[in-house]
Amino acid sequence: MTQTPRLLVTMGDVAGIGPEIIAKAWPALCNICRPVVVGDLGWMQWALDLVQSPAAVVEIQHLVEADSSPDMIPCLPATDQHLETVEPGRLSAAAGRAAFDFLCRAIDSVRAGEAHGIVTCPIHKEGLRAAGLPYPGHTEILAERTGTPRFAMLLYAEGLAVVHVTLHMALREVFSDLATEAIVDKVELLDQTLTRLLDRRPRIGVAGLNPHAGDGGLFGDEEEKIIRPAIEAAQRRGIDASGPWPSDALFVRARHGDFDGVTAMYHDQGHIAMKLLFGRRAVNITAGLPLVRTSVAHGTAYDIAGRGLADETSLIEAARVASRLVHKQTSRQ
Amino acid sequence: MTQTPRLLVTMGDVAGIGPEIIAKAWPALCNICRPVVVGDLGWMQWALDLVQSPAAVVEIQHLVEADSSPDMIPCLPATDQHLETVEPGRLSAAAGRAAFDFLCRAIDSVRAGEAHGIVTCPIHKEGLRAAGLPYPGHTEILAERTGTPRFAMLLYAEGLAVVHVTLHMALREVFSDLATEAIVDKVELLDQTLTRLLDRRPRIGVAGLNPHAGDGGLFGDEEEKIIRPAIEAAQRRGIDASGPWPSDALFVRARHGDFDGVTAMYHDQGHIAMKLLFGRRAVNITAGLPLVRTSVAHGTAYDIAGRGLADETSLIEAARVASRLVHKQTSRQ
Repeated sequence: MTQTPRLLVTMGDVAGIGPEIIAKAWPALCNICRPVVVGDLGWMQWALDLVQSPAAVVEIQHLVEADSSPDMIPCLPATDQHLETVEPGRLSAAAGRAAFDFLCRAIDSVRAGEAHGIVTCPIHKEGLRAAGLPYPGHTEILAERTGTPRFAMLLYAEGLAVVHVTLHMALREVFSDLATEAIVDKVELLDQTLTRLLDRRPRIGVAGLNPHAGDGGLFGDEEEKIIRPAIEAAQRRGIDASGPWPSDALFVRARHGDFDGVTAMYHDQGHIAMKLLFGRRAVNITAGLPLVRTSVAHGTAYDIAGRGLADETSLIEAARVASRLVHKQTSRQ
Repeated sequence: MTQTPRLLVTMGDVAGIGPEIIAKAWPALCNICRPVVVGDLGWMQWALDLVQSPAAVVEIQHLVEADSSPDMIPCLPATDQHLETVEPGRLSAAAGRAAFDFLCRAIDSVRAGEAHGIVTCPIHKEGLRAAGLPYPGHTEILAERTGTPRFAMLLYAEGLAVVHVTLHMALREVFSDLATEAIVDKVELLDQTLTRLLDRRPRIGVAGLNPHAGDGGLFGDEEEKIIRPAIEAAQRRGIDASGPWPSDALFVRARHGDFDGVTAMYHDQGHIAMKLLFGRRAVNITAGLPLVRTSVAHGTAYDIAGRGLADETSLIEAARVASRLVHKQTSRQ
């Protein structure tokens, strides 16, 4: 690929901080890729005014027409929802439905070969639900629309990726969901994505579930019964996986470069570490999809939406990682 | 107090890294306090030789005789165990029993007014067990010997302290142990210790148990049923406590100075954050005791014991914090 990749930046829930972080990030995005906004023209213009950007929005109907520059934002309108009455920070069924439409259009365009990947701004679960779309988030929509049975959300920053075996559920529910097969699955997806990002065999550390990784069976038996068999299965498939490691020590070692990837057993185990280590520089990657998709690692931030205060760092990093993944994918073809 | 405090440094399990970290830390300890080793003379001399320290060990029988300097290590022999055959890195009942004896002697001496506080080197749970002393650690011995029903182990570094409501147990067991009263207890103990350390009303953030602190009941109900009532009870007692906060965001905010103390619900929730933030600079404080006691925040490290490789940072920090706690206690009397 001689040009930078064409990346579709979906606007997400327009009542959230999506429009304004796109407006703020735009010049940086143009240095990384050929970005095209999939969203709503009116909200894009509103966001540019909000952050006092001199850039102009240009409506396009086909991606071949798209021409991006720091001064020109090509925007593909992708919903028939009327978004004029949506207010920043206010839950809206129309905004929820529109966010879904933007994403579907982006998925279809990439699958049709019209763009190289997708970078998503945040959507709001309750907005989706208000629109009669009870998806917990982007990932499930992407998986369903691309017919992907095995997928995983990775948190990634600066060469370190974390995958979670269980994610958005009560901690109490983790015990029934934690299974050897599920762990092997996530380790494999993490290995695949990291192999592509690093161009070498990644070293993966698998966390224990219990304090001190069970301390030899003193504090729980999930390490021996569920996690160790998964590590051994992954090793048999040629993956450089090790553990189960006590999670507090594992992240310290990962930061020092001993591991490229960590498999966490539950949400906070991975998120406490990644947020402390990387803050807004962390991005999400959906592993296992037949297309490249990255995302900001934060939510719609309704509490500050519409004030121009939102930080665009994660969006810029998400574009950088997507661009890298596309490049690796293309150079391998 | 015109002089620095007299602190008793217990040697811990002599097969661990205790003796060598005392030998390495000694000159720094003398700048912080008037340290006296409670342990075994032979092992102290062995450790000095190991790290090529020119300091001399001096046997004392009474603490009034103790005279510390970078060149002179007063050592109070405190066990009748024969420790000549103990090997570094090898589990030993004699070393386990001796570690218990050192601690008991230190407790009794401080309670008799002969010293101001205790700084402990690590003991080994299995060593204690081999000696017929089935204590999980120092804290329980200290609590029992001082008749203390309410106590808590705090992890502390650089102005931030974390207390854990549950600690050394399988994650699965946390749910039955988590109770409103237990949380209030830990918040109070954290508040007391931080008040003494900071000389002002500390701001305490209480973590949720579930991802996103339950996300309004979507992922578990412990936040509303158990944790929020505890925070309200603590507030009624005049404590500046807030939450329940999502734990990943809470530690980021604590690092940025929004909180002085964090109440974590389980071991790894607090330990992942504190180890990443402070590494070896973290120390343990036992809150609730009628005496000052701090400890290194690491274990016996049998795997590297006897090689002079162990890092003394945590021991020096533990002495610094103990000294500060003694000073605050004394200046208040």
